[in-house]
Amino acid sequence: MLRGVLLDLAGVVYDGDTLIPGSAEAIGRLREAGLSVRFISNTTRSPRKALVAQLAGFGIEVSDDEVLTPAGAAIAWLLENGRSPHLVVHPKLGPEFDGIEFAGPPAVVVGDAGETFDYAMLNRAFRQLMDGADFIALANNRLFKDRDGLPSMDAGAFVAALEFASGAKATVIGKPAPAFFEAGLREMGCAAGEVAMVGDDAESDVAGALQAGLGAALLVRTGKYRAGDERRFDPPPTAVTADLAAAVEWLLSKRM
Amino acid sequence: MLRGVLLDLAGVVYDGDTLIPGSAEAIGRLREAGLSVRFISNTTRSPRKALVAQLAGFGIEVSDDEVLTPAGAAIAWLLENGRSPHLVVHPKLGPEFDGIEFAGPPAVVVGDAGETFDYAMLNRAFRQLMDGADFIALANNRLFKDRDGLPSMDAGAFVAALEFASGAKATVIGKPAPAFFEAGLREMGCAAGEVAMVGDDAESDVAGALQAGLGAALLVRTGKYRAGDERRFDPPPTAVTADLAAAVEWLLSKRM
Repeated sequence: MLRGVLLDLAGVVYDGDTLIPGSAEAIGRLREAGLSVRFISNTTRSPRKALVAQLAGFGIEVSDDEVLTPAGAAIAWLLENGRSPHLVVHPKLGPEFDGIEFAGPPAVVVGDAGETFDYAMLNRAFRQLMDGADFIALANNRLFKDRDGLPSMDAGAFVAALEFASGAKATVIGKPAPAFFEAGLREMGCAAGEVAMVGDDAESDVAGALQAGLGAALLVRTGKYRAGDERRFDPPPTAVTADLAAAVEWLLSKRM
Repeated sequence: MLRGVLLDLAGVVYDGDTLIPGSAEAIGRLREAGLSVRFISNTTRSPRKALVAQLAGFGIEVSDDEVLTPAGAAIAWLLENGRSPHLVVHPKLGPEFDGIEFAGPPAVVVGDAGETFDYAMLNRAFRQLMDGADFIALANNRLFKDRDGLPSMDAGAFVAALEFASGAKATVIGKPAPAFFEAGLREMGCAAGEVAMVGDDAESDVAGALQAGLGAALLVRTGKYRAGDERRFDPPPTAVTADLAAAVEWLLSKRM
């Protein structure tokens, strides 16, 4: 029995600054059907408030706590484990960590720093790791579809660089980490089998959700989707649809 | 029977701008004993002429063709395979590729670009790889001992970043690639078993040389050496000595 839906944002609801046609109506249909909806993004370049504002700009009203981001999950991890962040993140994300009373030894926290990644920034983090700091990856994505329509390197590449040089292994906070999906389930008060995921990343959204025990995971052919992605990762998607509107149609039809 | 010796440069002959005491005399002793000597460096930040000039400044006279660098081996590879370089290297190394008539599809060539590594540079190379370019790593070292005495990230980290993001696998040109050691053997006209390697990197200098079939590989406790390195890689060094002077003493004593 389907009770909740987790939705990826970039590449599913919108693409860059453009709403993907039919997405706002599709989200409305899920809510009208009485389903819990949460947004689970691996975006590590924007604070949660910016994502909520972006959705509002598209006419999609969501509250802060309906949006799950790796930064939010990382802050919870740092507080639980008594660590202070050494941030390797985009300047826009930095303020998300401001005003929180962290204490304890350092943990290197790597996100998608985008064009601000440079040698000095990475080498400072590398030296922290060599001195024994913990190592947190907000996300481990290979690439994303950039504003010019071409693929660009995502945070995972820089996590791989630091892992290779230091010999340390990062703990991934975002998708496909099961703990991140589980945080979404807790928010909805649903069991894993009662929830479906919709994403454009066959690896971290879809295979990750199914590995976390979710009842279904749908791959959409928008955003970073490339032909054949549904055959590239294990387990494969429960279904592949043209876009979010078609995914919602599929979910609601199965529900009856 | 020992007929030739391959010597690493940084961390063995000199450390930063400083000659390691006894190195110049030790190289003189090898030559007086009638042994062939070649310098085999993974440095990808300096053109060969700069290395030769640096050695001359320490009173060690060598000719250009006694110094083997990954850039030289990469140029040979590009010409043999009909590829044009897309360079991700330090600005100082760029001129090494000037004036050579390359032709054919692109090959991404990654060296230690040092502080000049940035997102834009890596992302351009990433997109070339996504479009099917070949992928050459001048070196794959994890770290080097920086001028401030601390470890810094080396080229291998950025190779790992590009490999992770693109899914392409780099062909390594420098040590520990057997072909690089073999180029040194050819220069000396020696069989692998007749040559010893001396280096401060237990992985690429020492284990690499032994895997390439060299008769002996000595690890020196200078440069990037850290306590226990001799037990970290397989095969382990033939011998471990305090420095190059002691390594030469060891080689000449075994020869008698």
